[in-house]
Order: sequence, then structure tokens, then C-alpha cells
Amino acid sequence: MEFESQNRTELSSIGEFGLIKQFRAAFTPKQTTTLMGIGDDAAVIQNSNTPLAITSDLLLEGVHFDLRYVPLKHLGYKAVVVNLSDICAMNAIPKKILVNLGVSNRFSLEAIEELYAGIQAACQYYNIDLIGGDTSASQQGLMLSVTAIGETQASGAVYRSTAKEHDLVCVSGDLGAAYMGLQILEREKSVFLANPKMQPELEGFDYLIQRQLKPEARIDIINGFIERGIIPTAMMDISDGLASELLHICNESKVGIRLYEDKIPIDSLTFNTALQFNLDPTVCALSGGEDYELLFTIPQSAYEKLSKWNAISVIGHVTSAHAGCEMIAKDGTQHPIQAQGWKAF
Amino acid sequence: MEFESQNRTELSSIGEFGLIKQFRAAFTPKQTTTLMGIGDDAAVIQNSNTPLAITSDLLLEGVHFDLRYVPLKHLGYKAVVVNLSDICAMNAIPKKILVNLGVSNRFSLEAIEELYAGIQAACQYYNIDLIGGDTSASQQGLMLSVTAIGETQASGAVYRSTAKEHDLVCVSGDLGAAYMGLQILEREKSVFLANPKMQPELEGFDYLIQRQLKPEARIDIINGFIERGIIPTAMMDISDGLASELLHICNESKVGIRLYEDKIPIDSLTFNTALQFNLDPTVCALSGGEDYELLFTIPQSAYEKLSKWNAISVIGHVTSAHAGCEMIAKDGTQHPIQAQGWKAF
Repeated sequence: MEFESQNRTELSSIGEFGLIKQFRAAFTPKQTTTLMGIGDDAAVIQNSNTPLAITSDLLLEGVHFDLRYVPLKHLGYKAVVVNLSDICAMNAIPKKILVNLGVSNRFSLEAIEELYAGIQAACQYYNIDLIGGDTSASQQGLMLSVTAIGETQASGAVYRSTAKEHDLVCVSGDLGAAYMGLQILEREKSVFLANPKMQPELEGFDYLIQRQLKPEARIDIINGFIERGIIPTAMMDISDGLASELLHICNESKVGIRLYEDKIPIDSLTFNTALQFNLDPTVCALSGGEDYELLFTIPQSAYEKLSKWNAISVIGHVTSAHAGCEMIAKDGTQHPIQAQGWKAF
Repeated sequence: MEFESQNRTELSSIGEFGLIKQFRAAFTPKQTTTLMGIGDDAAVIQNSNTPLAITSDLLLEGVHFDLRYVPLKHLGYKAVVVNLSDICAMNAIPKKILVNLGVSNRFSLEAIEELYAGIQAACQYYNIDLIGGDTSASQQGLMLSVTAIGETQASGAVYRSTAKEHDLVCVSGDLGAAYMGLQILEREKSVFLANPKMQPELEGFDYLIQRQLKPEARIDIINGFIERGIIPTAMMDISDGLASELLHICNESKVGIRLYEDKIPIDSLTFNTALQFNLDPTVCALSGGEDYELLFTIPQSAYEKLSKWNAISVIGHVTSAHAGCEMIAKDGTQHPIQAQGWKAF
């Protein structure tokens, strides 16, 4: 299912400077705060009045993505989104990105254009300027490094380390769907590898596959905070799975958390598909990862401000560090929350 | 000559989070403007009053560096420096970096600590805070992505596109040495591959090898501009070679340049070693690259401000676009300047 274009133009025929020139034209800055985008030694941006949030991630073929089922356009989109999500997690609005690309001669110009089309789509959707980065040859495979920059609110950045006892623990959207999307794609990859003539059976799983291939950064939630006058006490995004992130907040804030299993938002398609795969839907939500939803805490006094905000679920509350990070299961039993996140090495 | 430690600790024994924790401790921010360094979803920095310059580069094993003769500590140092150099080229003072690292299990924890020691040495020498980045497994080889952020001067950023006719063309330091250092290292690598018992003959070439393995970013030149009240009209750093960079300034500024061969600063060791290798020293200076010196233009009226500044050479002047980008050779003949820069694909 790797991207195959009808036309194939070798990257060598256009060259590094030709490629940069082409993308410089495609990524004309739109914001007045971008004083210089692509085309000089460095980008130059006008400062906002508030501190800047900055993050950078490296995405490697075969480690972070599998081009056998991730279309290049989706990869470009997702590479941007995961970094924008980190900016949102600071209670900041992302504004600019830089993209570094390493690409082997296995890829055609058309393939790289697909990748950049995904990056461009994300920039347009989120109103982001691509202001810099470079493109170079790799010996093997595709690697992408994205740096994102955003503006914090006047109230300041929100960290992981500032949750307070008695705060409410909240999450946006629903969890576990990206993980189930991955299971579907992995299953179809196996079927395809066994018999390349088989068509993938993706019908009916659109939502799950979209959550895996085309996640979104919850800038809408940050804007929702601004509209409602909510300042979270602590926040992070859910990339490694809810369990792992809850433990981060407990460790960094030196608090405990009591999570209620029945409050964890799980979409019915995620739930039913998990059962089909003989997986526990709660485990998928806790450990699945890649949801890119926001996990945050608010003072109890801010609870009313959440009213009629369907995007937000209150899933627990902050306790003392002594009480630990615990889940109250649907049957009333209590279980310590354990991280089953991604092990890199 | 690849880094070999007496002890070898597998990265898997410490894990991704263990590694991040270790480096978080090693890279404690020193600047009050770093509100949050490593350890949250994103770094947070306090704004300066002037616009920020931002750049990001990807360095790949086997493409941008060869670990058979580049020690990991030097690699870490150089990866930072090349990005700081880009910030300097905007007439800005670098302040922060983010580093993303992709590393295969071929590398031990000790090897990665060497790499980070080089990054740390650069941070200390240049008074830079490392504020973020990530570390992840790669399937094969080492890849580094560095993002650097700096503060421009009150006079604003200096671009490539703003050189004016009659300006003087200047360069810092001397050129071609990094390229000759590479030739020495490549020669010794060949000798070593042919007979691993042979000791490398590097004696007497220290300056050239240092220019290749441990280049410096010319922050001192930017500070020199401030002290002397010099605002360059255009500037860039010399990474691909003088010829290539002169053409960039001509193209971006829509001007011509007249370069005088006898004014190009070449160290005597570079000169003599080039002759030993049957290379033309001028060609090495024009096309060698990786010098990380600053190429800039100033108004003729600022010429006096350069007096007694030995670090700076005036190598030519800006002409009309119509006159082209030309070199006047030592024998008085005129030659169009052509880029022989690095071809990526």
C-alpha cells in the first residue's frame, strides 16, 4: 500500500537546491509575524507578548511509522500534528513549524511532494507557517524531524508538575481508537503480505483508521479554555497512553490520582472492535497511545465551566502522593495504574 | 577509530525514560529566560525584545558524518556549532538549542554519553541552554537533529537579500582548512582500512583537523559588530563553500560580486597541504565548505570600523547584477564564479 505514483521523477534530476526552491514557493508564509521563512540561514519571527513554547520530535521509518500502510500524505500531516499537540499541551497556540527531511533515492520527487502535501494540509488547517528546515539525502529510509513553536496564554504555560490535591482530572475526546486503528491496519498488512491479491477490509473501521493515520491536535480545546476562562492546573497530551501520562503527572506534581474506569471515554466502535480482537477496551484506552487528546487537571471550583462541553470528560481526581495512582474498576475494586508504554530500545 | 569504551552498557538496560532522565539532569538550564527545559511536553522560553532567529538541521550517519574518523564527542559539538553558525549569520546571538537523537542498539550508553558530552561542551562554551528534544531508537545508524534559537539585534536580522551595489564583501577567519582537514582524515581512513595496524599520521595537521572536526561558530564576530557599531548589509555563513555562498548573495540580493583571488584568506598550512595533495588552494577555499566563517557585506562608509580587526578580510565588492559574480585571478584574468557545492542526491 506504499505510495506509488504513475510518474516517477528521480530526486537527483531536481537536486537539493531545486527541491528547496520548489518548497519555498509552496510554503509562502502567511503570518505577519513571520519576518523570514525558508530561504536564508535561519527563519526570523516577531515575538509575541507571552513566552513561547517549543518542541521538536524525530520520526523514523520502521520505528515510528510503517510506509506499508501509512500513506505519505498522512505521514506528513501526522508528523506536524503530533508536534502541534505538544504545543497545545502547554496551553499554547501553535504558530510555526520547521521540518527537516532525510530521504533516500528510493523515493521519487512525486512521493516527496505527497509528503509535503500532507504537511501543507496541516499548516492550512491549523493556520501554521512553515518557516524553515532542510532536505537531505539519507542512505536508507525516510526520517522527519519537526519543530513546532507556539504562543502561551497571558496566564502562562501549563506544566505537568502543577496538579494540586482535590483537582479534577479531565480528558478531551475519546481514547483507545488510534490503537484499535493500528490493530486493524496491522491485521490487513498481515493478510496483504500473505496474499497480495487480497483487498484490505477496512470498511466500517473508518473512525479508528482515521484516528491512527490522521490524528488532530486539540487546538479547539485550548480555544475552548480561553472562551470559558478555564486555566488548567496541569496538562499534557496523550501520546504514550493514558496510564503512562497519569503517572507522569503524579510523578512531576508529586500527587496521587484516583481514576474511575467507568468514566474513561471510549467510543462504541473502539469498544466493540477491541472485543472482536479479544482485547480489554479499558486496557486499550489506558495503554494504547497515539490518541493526542489532552489530559488536564482543573480546580473543583472550575467544574461548572465545563458544563455543556461534550468534548471533555471528568475521569477522576487528584489525591495525595501517598494514595498513589490508582484506578477504581467498574466492579469497585482498586488497581494500581501501571505504564505499559512504548519501549524504545 | 570509532569510539570504543572499556565499559559497554546496553541502551536497553536503561530505557528511553532512563536516558531522558539522565540527560535532563545533565542539561539543567542556566538562563533565567528558560522557563521550562527538558521534562514537559514542550520547552517554554521568555521572549526577548527583538525578533528570534530559528534554524534546524538534520545530520545523518554516512551522509553528513563518518564515525570511522569522527569521534562522537566531536560530532556532538559540531552538530551544535553548525546550527549556532546559522543563527550568527542572521546577526543574532544564539541562546537555546533542542536536540533530537535517533540511535540504534549498535551504540552503547557510554557512546551516547560521549555524544552528549560534546553537546554539553558546546552549550557551555557558547553559553547556550539545551531546552528540549527527544531520544529514540533507530533501526540503523545515528541521526541527529538540532534546532537553534537566537536573539537578533535591535537593528534587526541581516538577510542574504540585502547586499547593495558598491558594498564591500568581507569574510571572517580563513577558508579551505576544514576541507583540507577532511582530505587528511580520508587519506588516513584509506590507510587504516588497508592496514588496520597502521597508526594515523595526523601530526602537523592539527589546525586542519580541528577545523574539520571541531569548527566554531563566530559569535565573537557578531559581538565584534556590536562593539564597533557595524551592521552588515547582508550576511550568511560559509557551509557549502565561498563560491556557492557568493552566488546565493548575488541571486538573493540581485547584485553581482567582484572577488579578488589574492584577497581570499588562506592559512599557510592549508595552502601548503593543498599543494601536497595536488589541489589548487583557491579552489579549496572556494568550493571546500564547512568553514563556518561569516561572509558579509558592509557599506564602504563602514570600512574604517574594520581597522585593526585582523579576523576580517575584505575580499571584493558588490557590483550590478549585470556584471555577474566574477573572480579576478592573481594573474589579472577574470573568471565567472561557479558553485561546486555538495550534491545531495
